[in-house]
Amino acid sequence: MVNIAVLGYGTVGSGVVEVLNVNGDSINKRCGQEINVKYILDLRDFPGDPIQEKIVHDYNIVVNDPEVKIIVEVMGGVEPAYTFVKESILKGKSVCTSNKELVAKHGAELLELSKTKKVNFLFEASVGGGIPIIRPLNQSLTADEIEEITGILNGTTNYILTKMSNEGSDFDSVLKEAQMKGYAERNPQADIEGFDTCRKIAILSSLAFGMQVDFEDIYTEGITKITDADIKYAKAMGASIKLLGTSRKEQDHVYAMVAPMLIKPTHPLFSVNDVFNGIFVRGNVIGDVMFYGSGAGKLPTASAVVADVVDAAKHIGTNIMTLWSSKKLKLSDIKNAKHRFFVRIADNSDEMKEKVAYIFGHVEEVKAPGVDNEYAFITLQMSEEIYREKAINIDKIISIIRVMF
Amino acid sequence: MVNIAVLGYGTVGSGVVEVLNVNGDSINKRCGQEINVKYILDLRDFPGDPIQEKIVHDYNIVVNDPEVKIIVEVMGGVEPAYTFVKESILKGKSVCTSNKELVAKHGAELLELSKTKKVNFLFEASVGGGIPIIRPLNQSLTADEIEEITGILNGTTNYILTKMSNEGSDFDSVLKEAQMKGYAERNPQADIEGFDTCRKIAILSSLAFGMQVDFEDIYTEGITKITDADIKYAKAMGASIKLLGTSRKEQDHVYAMVAPMLIKPTHPLFSVNDVFNGIFVRGNVIGDVMFYGSGAGKLPTASAVVADVVDAAKHIGTNIMTLWSSKKLKLSDIKNAKHRFFVRIADNSDEMKEKVAYIFGHVEEVKAPGVDNEYAFITLQMSEEIYREKAINIDKIISIIRVMF
Repeated sequence: MVNIAVLGYGTVGSGVVEVLNVNGDSINKRCGQEINVKYILDLRDFPGDPIQEKIVHDYNIVVNDPEVKIIVEVMGGVEPAYTFVKESILKGKSVCTSNKELVAKHGAELLELSKTKKVNFLFEASVGGGIPIIRPLNQSLTADEIEEITGILNGTTNYILTKMSNEGSDFDSVLKEAQMKGYAERNPQADIEGFDTCRKIAILSSLAFGMQVDFEDIYTEGITKITDADIKYAKAMGASIKLLGTSRKEQDHVYAMVAPMLIKPTHPLFSVNDVFNGIFVRGNVIGDVMFYGSGAGKLPTASAVVADVVDAAKHIGTNIMTLWSSKKLKLSDIKNAKHRFFVRIADNSDEMKEKVAYIFGHVEEVKAPGVDNEYAFITLQMSEEIYREKAINIDKIISIIRVMF
Repeated sequence: MVNIAVLGYGTVGSGVVEVLNVNGDSINKRCGQEINVKYILDLRDFPGDPIQEKIVHDYNIVVNDPEVKIIVEVMGGVEPAYTFVKESILKGKSVCTSNKELVAKHGAELLELSKTKKVNFLFEASVGGGIPIIRPLNQSLTADEIEEITGILNGTTNYILTKMSNEGSDFDSVLKEAQMKGYAERNPQADIEGFDTCRKIAILSSLAFGMQVDFEDIYTEGITKITDADIKYAKAMGASIKLLGTSRKEQDHVYAMVAPMLIKPTHPLFSVNDVFNGIFVRGNVIGDVMFYGSGAGKLPTASAVVADVVDAAKHIGTNIMTLWSSKKLKLSDIKNAKHRFFVRIADNSDEMKEKVAYIFGHVEEVKAPGVDNEYAFITLQMSEEIYREKAINIDKIISIIRVMF
């Protein structure tokens, strides 16, 4: 029997307990021993809930109990999670977490600490909810040099964009509806401004390239400026707008960014809709692979956490090697990243078209039914810097979206 | 340093050597030690090839060298692979293989033998080429009870169906083209009759349900009877025809089958086209996940084999637990499996329509531009047995395709 403690009895924490109850038999079989929840740490009490007798309010009870071998940290946020997790590892306990803020900020340090203590710090649920992506990156794609990781990593924004696309609705009304349905939080900034995606692509990039990618260094744009007119243009192109977190290695440079981008049906992420997530990986020998599934939700996320618990239980006394050094990976300046740009200008006069042709050279005009008095086009591929230098000469630019085809 | 031997210097074998050469530095880093190819077993010589000095023709040299810790078996076919692999395991060597025939037939036995010898028998490349699916099933989806696995598991047939769909061409001409391009073998029976898919879904089902699923027990239909008219109907329905290997648990019954099926864009496998493979898994807590990538090809397959070598090297002396008992899983009779059926009848008279309505009750008529003098419809959901009982009363049935929506 292996004793575990769950820190935080919120959505994911209660999901972990539920998964262990529902699938206990098969989990224990796969684990080779019984998993027993000894403590649940929460500030609240849960009178009437069968887990009430396991509730403790003092973290020290958990960390000082040598019987507890595995800590499930599902509180979220950097503190006090970081302090609790670090102390747990120092006391020789493995930690399984769904906490992307913690992993993005302190992942490298906690992995190194785990190595010295011969325990494990596992975080499958921190990216892509239930989708197996951390373990595949760490253990399955070991023969490859990763060239690119691009993901739809946030279910809320993907739901909003899908809804806007399917119903032609505008951003604000879809956001309100998503909030009512519980798909978006009351304070949705972390999702819609791309911060959540940013932390997740930072974690994936760190694992892919084996060095610390700081999320603060990643250029991040959200979806708040996407309008129904943009969606109409996308449809006219047979394309779709997705909020993508992407990092790409070109020679010795790594570029990372979060932004809405246009993709076509030939891209494996095109058909990742609603609250689903998808993570596309390109390796230099495996080629293109993609992982798809529920990027959030109580049970899918708990499934990933419990799978980590099983792995931790099977590896008590052995550290599973994870290449993520605390040495910082200096990202290349985004100004050198190359794309095509979809540009909308509030002026469809012949003079403007001539001016655009003069400045940008060849462009591909895009028309969308129901959007008038605009000139919209896709440029040739150019760096962000060159684009900005050119675009400064054109006033009346309404918006740009980067193009992945 | 860990010494390995490669059995078979064909497409995959030479790919393994290439991947180890190209990505050697990062592979050795992830492995924690250098991987050295000591022998390559092949009947042929390769004068001029830098690997010539490693070529041996006698398997006994390999198996009797205690320095060789890991065997890469990429010869294909059950014999002599089985004899070589079994002897290697008995001599305390781990084995990594891409050989689906071997794994489908002897997987359970070789896993059990590996366990007793504290070595590993790994076979990521035997299903889905480079796509990580075996390790995720075995190590990531451990918190779930698997309810369904459905896969596009054969690149050749998926290429043919995609081509038929995109170009409106008939089966025979697309097959010929695929053979010319090297996407289909000269003797394509194993692919187009579904035998290859059958072995792969047998392996996945055995892992998902933890017991031996014999491929001989799986009802298998290929794609040779799919015509351009079927494709036209599929398009008219907004659907797509895919050769699927599927197994599904309903209460205590497991059904498995291989057959062409109709799927809609809402299914994650819908957009898996050309030579790509996709594997859809439904767990009782994780919900739906899908894995996508190159299902074949020299380097993608070699990538999966080398990832297994890295895993084997990291686990020397420790068996990685895999639940696949040699106890046979008795599949439920396919006659009880329930679907909707797409039925084409060479008679569009009112009498026939009345007869169909009388026999099948409510059906959904399907019309396709360019296909005349037929009556085509989709039935309500019913078991295979009930369908057959009803269909026997109607002559002139041209064909049926099972419907996944």
